[in-house]
Amino acid sequence: MPLTKAIIDCDPGHDDVVAILLAAKHFDLLGVTTVGGNAPAWRVTENALGVLELIGRPEVPVARGAEGPIIGTLPRAGERVHGTSGLDGAVLPRGSNRVIAKRAVEFLIDTVMANPGTAVIATGPLTNLALAMRAEPRLAKSIARLSFMGGSATWGNVTAAAEFNAWADPEAAHVVYSSGARITMCGLDLTRQAAVGPETIARFRAVGTRTAAVVADLLEHYRAAAERITGSPAVPLHDPCAVATLAAPELFTFARANVTVELRGEETRGMTVVDQRLVLEEGAPVPEGMPRPNCRWAKRIEAEGLFRLVEEALAACP
Amino acid sequence: MPLTKAIIDCDPGHDDVVAILLAAKHFDLLGVTTVGGNAPAWRVTENALGVLELIGRPEVPVARGAEGPIIGTLPRAGERVHGTSGLDGAVLPRGSNRVIAKRAVEFLIDTVMANPGTAVIATGPLTNLALAMRAEPRLAKSIARLSFMGGSATWGNVTAAAEFNAWADPEAAHVVYSSGARITMCGLDLTRQAAVGPETIARFRAVGTRTAAVVADLLEHYRAAAERITGSPAVPLHDPCAVATLAAPELFTFARANVTVELRGEETRGMTVVDQRLVLEEGAPVPEGMPRPNCRWAKRIEAEGLFRLVEEALAACP
Amino acid sequence: MPLTKAIIDCDPGHDDVVAILLAAKHFDLLGVTTVGGNAPAWRVTENALGVLELIGRPEVPVARGAEGPIIGTLPRAGERVHGTSGLDGAVLPRGSNRVIAKRAVEFLIDTVMANPGTAVIATGPLTNLALAMRAEPRLAKSIARLSFMGGSATWGNVTAAAEFNAWADPEAAHVVYSSGARITMCGLDLTRQAAVGPETIARFRAVGTRTAAVVADLLEHYRAAAERITGSPAVPLHDPCAVATLAAPELFTFARANVTVELRGEETRGMTVVDQRLVLEEGAPVPEGMPRPNCRWAKRIEAEGLFRLVEEALAACP
Amino acid sequence: MPLTKAIIDCDPGHDDVVAILLAAKHFDLLGVTTVGGNAPAWRVTENALGVLELIGRPEVPVARGAEGPIIGTLPRAGERVHGTSGLDGAVLPRGSNRVIAKRAVEFLIDTVMANPGTAVIATGPLTNLALAMRAEPRLAKSIARLSFMGGSATWGNVTAAAEFNAWADPEAAHVVYSSGARITMCGLDLTRQAAVGPETIARFRAVGTRTAAVVADLLEHYRAAAERITGSPAVPLHDPCAVATLAAPELFTFARANVTVELRGEETRGMTVVDQRLVLEEGAPVPEGMPRPNCRWAKRIEAEGLFRLVEEALAACP
Repeated sequence: MPLTKAIIDCDPGHDDVVAILLAAKHFDLLGVTTVGGNAPAWRVTENALGVLELIGRPEVPVARGAEGPIIGTLPRAGERVHGTSGLDGAVLPRGSNRVIAKRAVEFLIDTVMANPGTAVIATGPLTNLALAMRAEPRLAKSIARLSFMGGSATWGNVTAAAEFNAWADPEAAHVVYSSGARITMCGLDLTRQAAVGPETIARFRAVGTRTAAVVADLLEHYRAAAERITGSPAVPLHDPCAVATLAAPELFTFARANVTVELRGEETRGMTVVDQRLVLEEGAPVPEGMPRPNCRWAKRIEAEGLFRLVEEALAACP
Repeated sequence: MPLTKAIIDCDPGHDDVVAILLAAKHFDLLGVTTVGGNAPAWRVTENALGVLELIGRPEVPVARGAEGPIIGTLPRAGERVHGTSGLDGAVLPRGSNRVIAKRAVEFLIDTVMANPGTAVIATGPLTNLALAMRAEPRLAKSIARLSFMGGSATWGNVTAAAEFNAWADPEAAHVVYSSGARITMCGLDLTRQAAVGPETIARFRAVGTRTAAVVADLLEHYRAAAERITGSPAVPLHDPCAVATLAAPELFTFARANVTVELRGEETRGMTVVDQRLVLEEGAPVPEGMPRPNCRWAKRIEAEGLFRLVEEALAACP
Repeated sequence: MPLTKAIIDCDPGHDDVVAILLAAKHFDLLGVTTVGGNAPAWRVTENALGVLELIGRPEVPVARGAEGPIIGTLPRAGERVHGTSGLDGAVLPRGSNRVIAKRAVEFLIDTVMANPGTAVIATGPLTNLALAMRAEPRLAKSIARLSFMGGSATWGNVTAAAEFNAWADPEAAHVVYSSGARITMCGLDLTRQAAVGPETIARFRAVGTRTAAVVADLLEHYRAAAERITGSPAVPLHDPCAVATLAAPELFTFARANVTVELRGEETRGMTVVDQRLVLEEGAPVPEGMPRPNCRWAKRIEAEGLFRLVEEALAACP
Repeated sequence: MPLTKAIIDCDPGHDDVVAILLAAKHFDLLGVTTVGGNAPAWRVTENALGVLELIGRPEVPVARGAEGPIIGTLPRAGERVHGTSGLDGAVLPRGSNRVIAKRAVEFLIDTVMANPGTAVIATGPLTNLALAMRAEPRLAKSIARLSFMGGSATWGNVTAAAEFNAWADPEAAHVVYSSGARITMCGLDLTRQAAVGPETIARFRAVGTRTAAVVADLLEHYRAAAERITGSPAVPLHDPCAVATLAAPELFTFARANVTVELRGEETRGMTVVDQRLVLEEGAPVPEGMPRPNCRWAKRIEAEGLFRLVEEALAACP
């Protein structure tokens, strides 16, 4: 059964914008929940409302979520790439709608429980999902599929070992990976295969819609900010990968793996430890004595396919 | 302004029963929320309903809460003292009421936000409160006073360093102690001053009500179970202390202290580190360079006063 | 059999001076080994040579030891109390002797193995002893008695939970407490019972020897520095306690306890966790399921007796 | 200046045998020091003596080292691959020589300090080297080059994240990587490129010397044991890589990297965190704000070249 309903839990964030765009095109988008991450909660919430306005979908409900991680306070590492607004590089229209009264945790629980078959796409820290899973123990198994952009099976970005979304709330990531939910992991090892340089951004702009122009402006700002840090002219289109695993799984190679989240390491806090001693084909039996796979690891992506999805989504917008 | 409204967040548990009894007598009890701790969530919820029935207050709403800690699973250490039912030693009446539809996290947020001046008395792991504080950032400062039975300023019970309620969900305790809430800490160092032996239990029974008989049966079972572990004939009346700090503060000596919760220690996970290098009288200024006090530490209790409160509450019950 | 031979492993340090003084009077002092702690290794080594000169014992061999802890670098916390020289407050004579060629680790191993019945008195971080125990596995059981000034059964000094000597090299303390050596622990909970104020220092000065004058000057400087931090006019005479447990055990109350050293805690690294749920009289059997005592915990000291030992030692010096 | 003198610090162990063989051929081998690792210290010491006898070099001094790691006890994970003897699969001649009186720690310090230009090849846990570096602070900078087989820049073997030699004594690895020594790292990411299957072992046997026959027997046993665990017919020739980086650097691609060792992680203890966000060509400047490279990371090996070195060494033996 193809998934048709989805919620996106995000912290826009430049690449989140493209993820929202894809999610709105490919799914019955039941709502957008926000979480402090790339920028503080109030900013990413404004950004989410603005993006929905931009793409002509202001009726999608937006629920505001957690301001920071379970333990500690919101790190400011996101600012270096996304700017203080979380979306430097273009001015979005103001949302004509406003956030709903329900908090994100409550919205996630109520909406998933009331709509069997709903997928959740998570493109920010997992705080909202973890809180919701602990407040309502039946939630984890009720999510049809949880596609998460975060973690890494190789090396990190915000530290040598950790990726930003997992590192920004390691306890939340630990809760989610231990929850029994049907997780698809889109880590840096995957998203680095889907990097966009000036040429790809020009292709997006050439789609010609107003949305395409704004998205191209945003991506160019994002790309240039990342280049100043990494020295590379191309920047991974992280978050859209998490939508694409559900919308276009044929673009991916998947395997099953056991993934744990390191909470206590001094050098490795927030690292997703992917046990690559044992990576199984889908359907293969687990040898004795090895940890059970707890997620579907997206290992390879055909990037050109993803770029085409983005072009199609931009073409369908105002 | 005297506190008049309260919620009790608990995991009954023998001493929780006496705490509910006291809370029902001294406060407008807005609700009881339950949390997995001394026994699994479903059992402690049944127990809470039964206790309210016993004491003639079945109309008090009971909301079911978290099944286990934020990280990991519910430990079974409570069973050694409280038995598999969480309340071995007497049979409670079945509750004539049932749990409300709202989950504990939602009930705590909605009730506290709607009732300014509400106190929360926490006598189990702090999971519900931590989840609620993270889901609704305004909650911590909206609780008029949060009196917590847990932690220790000296040594632990479940490990050499840690007390059960703090140890059963260290991340939750960390969230609460870092939240800016107005916390009163009733640790083992306090509650060990309020231990009941056979003689005190006999006094409680002598009150003569049906409730007094059941409570005496429960406490005798609890006392005997604890004696088999510690060798001491008297068992601390832990949880009622947390009600008494609000209902009868004149029984206590308080000081201000900085308390942190250890999350990562191998020998000390779940320990409440009370910085006793700096314990301030209420109102005294904080010297430069020292951590700011974040809680009111209940250091001394006049145990006889607590026992009289219990007798009075038992006398007022059916 | 009374112990007659001893090595003192130290980081002088004001109170170390009094410890050396006592050790030289009561034992056949086979050597002094130094370790970075209160001040860098080269300074405390100079100080050790100077103290031996002062007390008329320049022939005692001094072996230089580790510059800093096993993990990390030497903290500078000692400076606040002991000054940059480690012995601010008086000028010691220059040592007429020089350090021996053997490193402390080698000296400790060779001397203990060649002299059955030798005690070791440790009044600084345990780095040398830990390295020696790991390089020579037979060493731990060959030390007749290891009396250590460090740790705490209550609260700390350098952090809320940890005492300086244990905290300055937690891995070393862990090695020693896990080694099976016959340890006597003299923690802050003990040494705070042996604090000296201006009056006691005046008594020491009144002994009238040149050594007494220098020691009184040192202690007055130390006392005043500590008062500026703690607000208390009396300062614990920490290190001499560790000599006195061997030289005058009748001044102490001992019990057996299990002590572990926390390596990983964020709030508790370097804490000595004394399991006070189980403290046994000497000779009492260990109940099932409880950790075995691994040290003799010095719980109480008759301070006046210690002060008299100091007076007698000062009187016996030049 | 080509390195001509070397000490090998090892825990033979099957692949250690080949490492000793290569080291004895290419260097003036000043000594062999042993450390508990693949098997207990006494066994690996016997094995070292036997190997030297086998290859006709019984005069090389063997010094016995640490029995287990700095913290904790020797893990038994090595047994699964190397058997209880550490060298199951062939019977070595008994060594005609015996261990020297000096302990390994002392031997390493004295020999390196007395022989400028000496390299150290470490193919077991780094316990001896760490103890020696802490006991003698000048040692680290006095080692001309320290080539270590251990760690991983990708995934582990003994755990998902950690390689055996680093994991077996993480504190020692931390000391060595923080020491300022000139380290070459040969991790699993390298040694997996130099795996030997039945065909390569047949080539080694075909050399025709008695040593070649014994080594082939050992490697075949080792290969088969590894295959039962990993399912792969080829087993990495780990330890000889560490000799080859010094003896035949032209076989390798090197880069400079910052490597830290995780001590506290629950999932990652003993992991070598190679900061692959910044891997520099030899000689390239370090950008601001990035950690300084502290080792030469051997990234690629031309395996055929290594196999030829082994053949040549086998041919030169009895």
